[in-house]
Amino acid sequence: MSLKFYHWPMSRGVTVHWMLEELGVPYETVLLDLRKQEHKTPEFLAINPMGKVPALEHDGAVITEVAAICCYLAEVFPQAGLAVPPGDPARGPYLKWLFFAAGCVEPALVDRLLARPEGPSGALGYGSLEAVLGAITRQLHDSGGPNLLGDRFTAADLLLSSLLRWATAMKILPEAPEIEAWLTRVEARPALQSSIRKNLEAMPQDEPVSEGS
Amino acid sequence: MSLKFYHWPMSRGVTVHWMLEELGVPYETVLLDLRKQEHKTPEFLAINPMGKVPALEHDGAVITEVAAICCYLAEVFPQAGLAVPPGDPARGPYLKWLFFAAGCVEPALVDRLLARPEGPSGALGYGSLEAVLGAITRQLHDSGGPNLLGDRFTAADLLLSSLLRWATAMKILPEAPEIEAWLTRVEARPALQSSIRKNLEAMPQDEPVSEGS
Repeated sequence: MSLKFYHWPMSRGVTVHWMLEELGVPYETVLLDLRKQEHKTPEFLAINPMGKVPALEHDGAVITEVAAICCYLAEVFPQAGLAVPPGDPARGPYLKWLFFAAGCVEPALVDRLLARPEGPSGALGYGSLEAVLGAITRQLHDSGGPNLLGDRFTAADLLLSSLLRWATAMKILPEAPEIEAWLTRVEARPALQSSIRKNLEAMPQDEPVSEGS
Repeated sequence: MSLKFYHWPMSRGVTVHWMLEELGVPYETVLLDLRKQEHKTPEFLAINPMGKVPALEHDGAVITEVAAICCYLAEVFPQAGLAVPPGDPARGPYLKWLFFAAGCVEPALVDRLLARPEGPSGALGYGSLEAVLGAITRQLHDSGGPNLLGDRFTAADLLLSSLLRWATAMKILPEAPEIEAWLTRVEARPALQSSIRKNLEAMPQDEPVSEGS
């Protein structure tokens, strides 16, 4: 079994890094310095034609897209307890929240960060950032907490909370007390803390902290 | 087993409708007239707080997000042969293309339709529409075709080709011969043809054909 993780500590890779820390299995990290355009070399474009980190190689197969990598790792390493397996009544909702993170939460947050207008009602897949946050808040309430799907912390919590932690850091998250309380609970996870520490150590010392892709 | 499908023939629901037609299992369709705001009633918001079609109820669980529904149905009905199961070497790439459709292809196409500027390089998850189409073209080439993952037609083909068929209808798809050839091959699927026919029949007769959410 080999896991090779293409990463840069100031990128969307931080979510996958946290996921890998949760698994408790060995993995190799390859840092690509985005400032030096190391994600645009012919060698890396052969791995990910989109020229983006993160990317993961597992036993020869390449997986890209943060949400896909999280979904995949949760299923390949079930002992970490982060997947909702097929046949479980919560399987459909679990998949829904993973795709909701990729298709709604991230575009809504990036649009807000870039101050892009939301366009005509219904045109954008996510509707509005307020609708997105409202759906998450409602789910945290309806599930009974403390996690999105109730008792268990899953890859859907990891993925969504990682996006919302980034939004908090970028100061674009509208006030949402239930979401903030959830993020505070998530913050206590040892794997998140070790991921934060390792990313800080890997960060170039000459660069102010910011995130790109 | 019960499948209830909340749909409107001029909406993102057409992709799920095609998926359901592929499965060859009975399902109930509930049409919500978007012109009458039937997707914003308290009853439907209790099913999908985002107030969007499509939504699917399967044995009491609600699944939303087009890509999540396709991923879920492919796995629940493996006899249709549209899923790549866990353990298959193509499982990771299969998940990657499903999430790529939701997180990159749809936002890139909607932005193009609305003529939204793409913003600073790397800020948007999808990069540029040209990068997105380039990645699909390369995959169709590298896989050896005729489908995204080679011999087998999967839910990833269905989802991506459905989005690109919509883009073609909206006249926003840049020239891409390999993609057009793939869309032509896909067009021959009987389930797609029956879905198109049924959606035309369900369409209100007083309305010009267009798509919303």
